[in-house]
Amino acid sequence: MVDRSLSARSLELLLGDWRGRGSAYESLADRIRLLVVDGRIPVETRLPAERDLADRLGVSRTTVAAAYRRLRELDHLHSVRGSGSVARLPGAPAILPAAFESEYLDFSKAAPPALPWLSDLAREAAADLPGHLGDSGYDPIGILPLRQAIADRYAQRGLPTSPDQIMVTIGAQHAIALVSRAVLGRGDRALIEMPTYPHAYEALRGAGARLVGSPVVPHAGAGPKGATGAGAGAAAALDADREEAASLVQSIRHSNPAIAYLMPDFQNPTGRTMSRESRARVLDAAARQGTVVMADETIAELDIDRAETFPPMAADGPAVLIGSVGKTIWGGIRVGWIRADRPLIRRLLAVRAPGDLGTPILEQLLVARAIERMDDVLALRREQLLAGRELVERRVAELLPEWQVPHVDGGIVTWIGLGAPVSSQLVLAARQEGLIITAGPRFGVDGAFERFLRVPICQSLEATDAALQALARAWRSLGGVPLGEPDPELLASVV
Amino acid sequence: MVDRSLSARSLELLLGDWRGRGSAYESLADRIRLLVVDGRIPVETRLPAERDLADRLGVSRTTVAAAYRRLRELDHLHSVRGSGSVARLPGAPAILPAAFESEYLDFSKAAPPALPWLSDLAREAAADLPGHLGDSGYDPIGILPLRQAIADRYAQRGLPTSPDQIMVTIGAQHAIALVSRAVLGRGDRALIEMPTYPHAYEALRGAGARLVGSPVVPHAGAGPKGATGAGAGAAAALDADREEAASLVQSIRHSNPAIAYLMPDFQNPTGRTMSRESRARVLDAAARQGTVVMADETIAELDIDRAETFPPMAADGPAVLIGSVGKTIWGGIRVGWIRADRPLIRRLLAVRAPGDLGTPILEQLLVARAIERMDDVLALRREQLLAGRELVERRVAELLPEWQVPHVDGGIVTWIGLGAPVSSQLVLAARQEGLIITAGPRFGVDGAFERFLRVPICQSLEATDAALQALARAWRSLGGVPLGEPDPELLASVV
Repeated sequence: MVDRSLSARSLELLLGDWRGRGSAYESLADRIRLLVVDGRIPVETRLPAERDLADRLGVSRTTVAAAYRRLRELDHLHSVRGSGSVARLPGAPAILPAAFESEYLDFSKAAPPALPWLSDLAREAAADLPGHLGDSGYDPIGILPLRQAIADRYAQRGLPTSPDQIMVTIGAQHAIALVSRAVLGRGDRALIEMPTYPHAYEALRGAGARLVGSPVVPHAGAGPKGATGAGAGAAAALDADREEAASLVQSIRHSNPAIAYLMPDFQNPTGRTMSRESRARVLDAAARQGTVVMADETIAELDIDRAETFPPMAADGPAVLIGSVGKTIWGGIRVGWIRADRPLIRRLLAVRAPGDLGTPILEQLLVARAIERMDDVLALRREQLLAGRELVERRVAELLPEWQVPHVDGGIVTWIGLGAPVSSQLVLAARQEGLIITAGPRFGVDGAFERFLRVPICQSLEATDAALQALARAWRSLGGVPLGEPDPELLASVV
Repeated sequence: MVDRSLSARSLELLLGDWRGRGSAYESLADRIRLLVVDGRIPVETRLPAERDLADRLGVSRTTVAAAYRRLRELDHLHSVRGSGSVARLPGAPAILPAAFESEYLDFSKAAPPALPWLSDLAREAAADLPGHLGDSGYDPIGILPLRQAIADRYAQRGLPTSPDQIMVTIGAQHAIALVSRAVLGRGDRALIEMPTYPHAYEALRGAGARLVGSPVVPHAGAGPKGATGAGAGAAAALDADREEAASLVQSIRHSNPAIAYLMPDFQNPTGRTMSRESRARVLDAAARQGTVVMADETIAELDIDRAETFPPMAADGPAVLIGSVGKTIWGGIRVGWIRADRPLIRRLLAVRAPGDLGTPILEQLLVARAIERMDDVLALRREQLLAGRELVERRVAELLPEWQVPHVDGGIVTWIGLGAPVSSQLVLAARQEGLIITAGPRFGVDGAFERFLRVPICQSLEATDAALQALARAWRSLGGVPLGEPDPELLASVV
């Protein structure tokens, strides 16, 4: 087994401000439990020895021992001979995330319900299948009709594309992992936005990268709806956009990263969109430095009411594009793609073979059918996202008036400011209320973002309303939330 | 970009006995070309500097320069500033393996044609889909109906199994890569059979393993059909089986590998089956040493007329099992699975997330339907494989009487002895005849197996006959093949 272990120092960093209102050992156990549940401490990671952690945290060894004992009772820790205490997800009776979580409302995933006419598409794909059974079926690059459909859609959106520039993958995550493996050497730096999509930085790390962060400054819609005049909002948005691009350019110049992972449209989790001017600046700096920009555009077309229409990022300079249908059609359809120049596509083919032998054909046929009707799909999603956004804004204002909800103009989530660094505590309390949701720090790599909570706007209205009610109950259960001094810097980044 | 480079010494090893009848530079270029086409030199690998290679091979620098120039003309090498000469597959006009190879008969893949009633299964799966659209669709473990069906089939075959012991993957290769990543740490040793399935050792290497080989001693059917009496054949088979198990046990004890990748039934490429006694010995040694045995059983049920029925390998001791439907249903259906104990399944879930977010649901529904009818599938495949085996044995006897065809009793390939170390030359000549087939050395890691050629018996009879005719023409084109002295050790391993 790979030995993953966490030093006392690293755990201290992850724990952040862990002390709650209960006893120290309970608070410590609770916080570690959240880190495991949340994936910030991967299962099978060895925790630091009791003495080391006690020294680091400045508590007694008895406190740490009691916390570990509590975690063992909860089945979140098990003792492995020679390996000390190892993190786990509660096992018996079920090891399966799906089964385990089935009684919960799951808002840890920002994923829309399946497309209503998905079964029709599946039937059409089944009917198309006989025309594609002539060879061995192993298809690491993608069937031509699908690559052509993807290329045509890029062209429609303003980026002429040939099918030779497309590789079909098993979802966007697979695409991100392949590009990471193709581009990165061990120890290379990878630039990420902070906050960002956690599975992306995990893929970069898995390919050996050292991560470098650059802050995202959300400005879509410029703050809570109606809170600012249109003129002031637009000016603030412009400033934020420039500040963010300047930081990215500086990081590229100073850190010389091999790759930069960016989400230019409706960024997950902040919802912000990067201006075309900023895209061009960042792409230019990256090209000069030899940094490969990987632009994740899986949610780029999920526009609600954005003022401007944006072409794919590669229209503004050299960029590798990632796409998928997981957020438009359904997460259970596992098809994504990479748009890159031909030499990189060649290299991706070489990198892919040891990990998998190709994308399923039936799945590809279904997506080829779906892309033909993408405008209808997007029209439906726009309606749903509009309703979801309105509901979240209205219900938070009613139930949780102290929270700040940035008004997003597209995408699948909103990045709510809680006004206090209690996201992890809130998420634990929400579990008691039957809601699974991800704490803010999961979207960073160093324990930051405790003042934020990502709330999906893409789930059904019924589920979203139930989730908000559960959050309100959880919030109340925290009682006298220690608001402390607001951190102006962190608060600024929500507006 | 990752810098992959090949030292002059490594290239010398891969080249083996490269001198042909033409000029030295042509022979050298030809041989390097084959290594690239065959995947033994991955694309984007930097070749050694001309001077280094010339020194190593004891030829003039002019010879190496001419060979590299020739490879450049053929588009198999390109010059990258600062990186010297880098291997590639001919690019213009097509980068796509499928399109590029479409005019060729492809016997590099041992994959049967699609199941005739596959489109029916796809329609049934489409009809099942509405019952599975209730959640986000991200499914890293597998839907319960499929895991139940897989578990039930193991039970039918003599190995009681719970669905909790199954993880569904995107094909067997994905399963092998996941287990490799879950079990191996960088620099750990991995034991493989020699020869073995190339993509498996690539996955092990990709997870950081150092490879250790143990010889496979084929004995299924004990030599060419009818060539030996049943008694002598059976005795020889018994000896070979024991010898092989002894070697595996010794390798486990001496090399202390973290993992051992074995194919106990109808091994690819040799076709041999390991006896139950040998399985138990090897599993016992592995358990004592703490070596995880990964048994690839993707072709284990493709029995033609094996005398004995074998349960899954885990019936004889602790083993992680790999299964898939790529060799029974079709390679274009990308569903495989891992059978392991619950702690390893948990660990696999943690390892999987950075690389992909789950197996497509529609694909899983199709396979759940297919497994219900697996007995019908296997009956059909048995007929096809029997006919394929008969055809290969008969036509080789007619067209290429100097070749030795071991009589396999199941599986998808036969490992033909050529009588001379000319497999790479033959494969290059076969390309001229419109046939793509893989040279023997691809199934090893050190340039051995030049006397062998893997010939699939699972393709259509028309294609198989055409492939054998192409091989016969290629063989004749080699003309006075230098048979040299037969190597008794190598020849023994075919019988």
